[in-house]
Amino acid sequence: MVLRGENFRVERIVSMGHSTPSDRWYDQELNEWVLLLTGSAGLLFEDEDKPRVLKPGDYLSIPAHRRHRVIWTDPNKYTVWVTIHYT
Amino acid sequence: MVLRGENFRVERIVSMGHSTPSDRWYDQELNEWVLLLTGSAGLLFEDEDKPRVLKPGDYLSIPAHRRHRVIWTDPNKYTVWVTIHYT
Repeated sequence: MVLRGENFRVERIVSMGHSTPSDRWYDQELNEWVLLLTGSAGLLFEDEDKPRVLKPGDYLSIPAHRRHRVIWTDPNKYTVWVTIHYT
Repeated sequence: MVLRGENFRVERIVSMGHSTPSDRWYDQELNEWVLLLTGSAGLLFEDEDKPRVLKPGDYLSIPAHRRHRVIWTDPNKYTVWVTIHYT
């Protein structure tokens, strides 16, 4: 946790070669905004055909309950995310 | 503006060779959290002797009314910031 506000929290997350297990979707109570700092990742929404590919500086919004999963992150280096969860 | 929440807003700011005029301090009504994405910068608080040097991935908090200014940003490439202003 790097910051907590009244209606939001900011976190820094590091992953390498991570993916969500293929039978699971994230289904979150809160809205989320994610920014990719280093590395790269593929994020798939259940309601889309192709994953969104994120490179450093890319960001996207994941409204509460929009089901998604991380298909891949860079296998060779750290992928660093900054996330904001908010109501 | 890349995101607006109930009590916060997120912005992406690009600067090159920018600095705050040397007789001016930023004195803000809102709390601010800044993250440097690319480039580099020196941020001086009025109540400190030396500037904080920010490199990619570095972040810091600037409480409301803590006077500060940007002493320098990288003269040769874009410095990209993500800021969160919040109550």
